[in-house]
Amino acid sequence: MSELTHFDEKGQAIMVDVGPKQITERLAVAHGKVYMKPETLELILRGEAKKGDVLGVSRIAGIMAAKKTPELIPLAHPLPLNSVTIEFSPDRGNSTINVEARVKVTAKTGVEMEALTAVSVTCLTIYDMLKAVDRAMVISDIKLMEKSGGRSGHFVRS
Amino acid sequence: MSELTHFDEKGQAIMVDVGPKQITERLAVAHGKVYMKPETLELILRGEAKKGDVLGVSRIAGIMAAKKTPELIPLAHPLPLNSVTIEFSPDRGNSTINVEARVKVTAKTGVEMEALTAVSVTCLTIYDMLKAVDRAMVISDIKLMEKSGGRSGHFVRS
Amino acid sequence: MSELTHFDEKGQAIMVDVGPKQITERLAVAHGKVYMKPETLELILRGEAKKGDVLGVSRIAGIMAAKKTPELIPLAHPLPLNSVTIEFSPDRGNSTINVEARVKVTAKTGVEMEALTAVSVTCLTIYDMLKAVDRAMVISDIKLMEKSGGRSGHFVRS
Amino acid sequence: MSELTHFDEKGQAIMVDVGPKQITERLAVAHGKVYMKPETLELILRGEAKKGDVLGVSRIAGIMAAKKTPELIPLAHPLPLNSVTIEFSPDRGNSTINVEARVKVTAKTGVEMEALTAVSVTCLTIYDMLKAVDRAMVISDIKLMEKSGGRSGHFVRS
Amino acid sequence: MSELTHFDEKGQAIMVDVGPKQITERLAVAHGKVYMKPETLELILRGEAKKGDVLGVSRIAGIMAAKKTPELIPLAHPLPLNSVTIEFSPDRGNSTINVEARVKVTAKTGVEMEALTAVSVTCLTIYDMLKAVDRAMVISDIKLMEKSGGRSGHFVRS
Amino acid sequence: MSELTHFDEKGQAIMVDVGPKQITERLAVAHGKVYMKPETLELILRGEAKKGDVLGVSRIAGIMAAKKTPELIPLAHPLPLNSVTIEFSPDRGNSTINVEARVKVTAKTGVEMEALTAVSVTCLTIYDMLKAVDRAMVISDIKLMEKSGGRSGHFVRS
Repeated sequence: MSELTHFDEKGQAIMVDVGPKQITERLAVAHGKVYMKPETLELILRGEAKKGDVLGVSRIAGIMAAKKTPELIPLAHPLPLNSVTIEFSPDRGNSTINVEARVKVTAKTGVEMEALTAVSVTCLTIYDMLKAVDRAMVISDIKLMEKSGGRSGHFVRS
Repeated sequence: MSELTHFDEKGQAIMVDVGPKQITERLAVAHGKVYMKPETLELILRGEAKKGDVLGVSRIAGIMAAKKTPELIPLAHPLPLNSVTIEFSPDRGNSTINVEARVKVTAKTGVEMEALTAVSVTCLTIYDMLKAVDRAMVISDIKLMEKSGGRSGHFVRS
Repeated sequence: MSELTHFDEKGQAIMVDVGPKQITERLAVAHGKVYMKPETLELILRGEAKKGDVLGVSRIAGIMAAKKTPELIPLAHPLPLNSVTIEFSPDRGNSTINVEARVKVTAKTGVEMEALTAVSVTCLTIYDMLKAVDRAMVISDIKLMEKSGGRSGHFVRS
Repeated sequence: MSELTHFDEKGQAIMVDVGPKQITERLAVAHGKVYMKPETLELILRGEAKKGDVLGVSRIAGIMAAKKTPELIPLAHPLPLNSVTIEFSPDRGNSTINVEARVKVTAKTGVEMEALTAVSVTCLTIYDMLKAVDRAMVISDIKLMEKSGGRSGHFVRS
Repeated sequence: MSELTHFDEKGQAIMVDVGPKQITERLAVAHGKVYMKPETLELILRGEAKKGDVLGVSRIAGIMAAKKTPELIPLAHPLPLNSVTIEFSPDRGNSTINVEARVKVTAKTGVEMEALTAVSVTCLTIYDMLKAVDRAMVISDIKLMEKSGGRSGHFVRS
Repeated sequence: MSELTHFDEKGQAIMVDVGPKQITERLAVAHGKVYMKPETLELILRGEAKKGDVLGVSRIAGIMAAKKTPELIPLAHPLPLNSVTIEFSPDRGNSTINVEARVKVTAKTGVEMEALTAVSVTCLTIYDMLKAVDRAMVISDIKLMEKSGGRSGHFVRS
C-alpha cells in the first residue's frame, strides 16, 4: 500500500513530510455544480441583478472555507494561501449553477484540497440559501480541473 | 423574493430568527458518492480489511465537520447535536463509494446542512487520501434523503 | 472587587456559573460606525447599487463573527443563537457608515458581547475592503444600545 | 466490543445519540500537575505576586480550551457550558503546580472531557511560558476526580 | 471600481493574489480606546496592582485574536505572524484606557488587519469584564497608526 | 524575570518576535502515556486487530490538534507544519499505551508545543473512547524527548 502517501509502511495515517520538497508557485482549479429546478435558477439570476445575493454570499463562504481546509481535511498541511477566487456560470439548459474555484500558493505542497473544499462549501451555501424553495437540489461533479507547480507536473483534466 | 428565508424583505442576508419555533427531535439524512477507478476502490476495500484505513479516517473527518457546520455555512445556526453517524457502502458495479450521514438534534431548527456538510467533507477526505493514485476521482450526488421533526413535515426523497 | 462577575473572590478570572439563571428570550442591539472620506462613502454607495458589494461582504463577516464570540472573548459562554441581523445606514453629513447588529437567543445569559463583536467585525471588514483607497478610516462609537430578557431588566441607552 | 459507547456494533466510530437522555445539571472535576525544577516553581510564585503572570495566562488558556473540546475530541458533543473555573495550588515539597478544573453544564451529557481538556491545556501553557528556563518539565496525573449529574451516578475518585 | 483590490473587474469579491509580491519584514501598529466612568477606570487600575487582572486577560484575548484574523476577515490572507504585543495606557483625564497593538510578519502582505483586529478584541474583552458595573462604556478611535514594509511605503498617521 | 521569553521587561505577556531568527529545519519529539486497567488495554489491542479502532481515531485527533496549537496556546506562533506523525506502543507490564508524536517544520521557531499538544490530545481521545469502561484512567509523563534545529542546539532527554 506504499502508493498512498497519507499512510506509512504500517498502514498508519500520517501527515506526510513535505520538508524535502521545493517551494514553488502552485495553482489548483476545481469545478462543481448544483442542479436545481428551473424556477430556482431564475430566482438566483434575478437576485444577482437586483438583491438577495445568493451567489455573493456563497462566494464568501467558499473563500473562507479554502482557508479552513487544514481544519477539515485531517492530513492536509496548513498553507499561507496567495489567492482564492470563485466564479459562477449559470447553465439554463441543464438548470445548474457551475462553480469554479482557483487557489494559488507559494509553498512546498499543492492546493487541490483547498480548491475542492472551496467548491464544496460554495455549493453547500447555495443549497442552504435556497433550500426553503427547493429541497431536492443536488450537488455534483466536484472534481479537479487543473493543477500545476508540483513535482508531478501540470495536470489538466481531459 | 420573500420565499427565501435567508433574506429579509430588502434582500439582505440574515440569520433567520428561530426563536418562535418549537424545540423538537429532528433528523436529517444525506447521501453522496465518490467515483473512482476500479483499482482505487479495491485499494480502499483491502485497506479496510487490513490496514491503511481510508474510510475510518474519512468517517472521523465527516463527524467533526458536522460540528463545524455553523463556521462554514454563513447563515446556519449553532446547534447542540445529539448524534452523527457516517456509513459507507461500496458499489463495485459503478466503482463508487457511497456515503450516508445521519444527524440528530433536539432544537428549534433542523440539521440538513450538518448532514450535507458531513457527507461533503467525508467525500473530500476520501479524495485526499487517495489522490496520489487517482487524481481524477469525482464527488457527486450530494443530496438530502430524509428530514423530519420540523414544521414542514417529513421529507423523504422519492 | 466582588462587583466584577468575571472574577472570583480571590481576583481570579472565571467563566461565571449561569446554571441557576432562568432560560429566557434575550435580545441585544449594538451600534458602531466607520468614519471615512466622502469619496470613499460614495464608492460604497455606488457599489451597493451596482457591484463590488462592500456592505454585503461585511454583513456576512459580522454574522459569522457573532457565532465566533465565545472563541474570541475568553470568558463568554457558548450560546445557540436564535438570530443575527446587521443593518447599515450611510450618513453623508458625517461621512460615516453606521452599523447596527441585533442578536437574539433563548438562553440563561445574554448576547451583548455577540452584538458588539458582530458590529466590530463588520466595521473591520468594511475597513479591509476599502483600505486600498482610504487607509485613515476610523472605527468608532461601538456601544450597546439595548438589552432585554435578563435579570437586570430592559436596558435602553439614553 | 459493545461496551464502548463510541463504536457501533460493527466497530465503527460514532457520535453516540444522546437524544433520549435527560437534561440535568452536570459537574466534572479534573486534576493534573506539572513537575518542574524548584527554581522554576519559585519563578512562578514570585511572578504571581508581582508581574509575569504565568498562572493567569494559563488559566485563560484552560478556560478557552474547555470551550474548544468538541473541536479537539472527535466524538465529543458540542455543549453550552454553564461555567469553567481553574484553580492552582503549588506544592513545594514535590516541586509541582497542581491544576484543578471544574466544569458545569445543564445538558443531556456530561463534561468530563471538557474538564480534562481544560486541565491539559492549562498545563501545556504553563510549559510553554516556562520552557525557556526548564525544558524538562513533565505534565502528569491528568485524571477525573469527580463527576455528577448523569445516569451513572456520582463518581468520586477514591 | 478598479481601485478596490478586493474586487475583480466584475465587482466580485476575491482574495487578491499576493504571489507576485516580495517577502519583506512588515509592521503594523493600531490604536483604540475604551471610554468608561472614572470609577470603572479606578477599578481596572487597582486590579492591575493587586488582583482581578482585567488588562492581563484582555491582552491575551487580543494576541489570540490577531492569530484569528483570517478566520474573521473574509478576504484576509493567512500569515505566519512573527510577533504580537499589546500595550495599555490609562488616561484619567478622558477616563479611557488606550490600547496599542503592534504586529510583525515576514511575508508577502501586511498585517494592518491583524493589528486592528487585536485592538478591537482587546477592547471588547475589557468591555466584557467590566460590563457588570458599567454597561455604557464606548469603544472608539480604532485606527491604523503606522505601517511599514510594503510597496506603498511607510505610512505614519499624522 | 528577563529569562522568560514570553514576558517583556514589565512582566507583560507577549508573542515574542521571531523575525530576526533563522529559517531552519526543526524537529520536536514528545511522549506521553495513558495508564489503564489491564482489561482496557486488551480491549484496545483486540480492537486494533479487528474493529473499534481506538488508536486510529486518537491518532487523527492528535494530528489535527498539532495544527490547532496556535489556537490553544496563547503565545504560540502559527506555523506551516511539514509533517506530524503519531506512534503507539502498548506496554502490558505497566498496563499503559505509550504515545509518541514527531513534528517537523521549516520555520523561524520550533514545534515543541505542537508535539506536546499532539500527544496530549491523542491521550485525551484514548480516554474519551474508553471512559465508558474505565473512568479511572490516568494520563501521565507528557514530556519533550528531543528538539533540534534551533539556536539552543540539539536537546535530547537524558
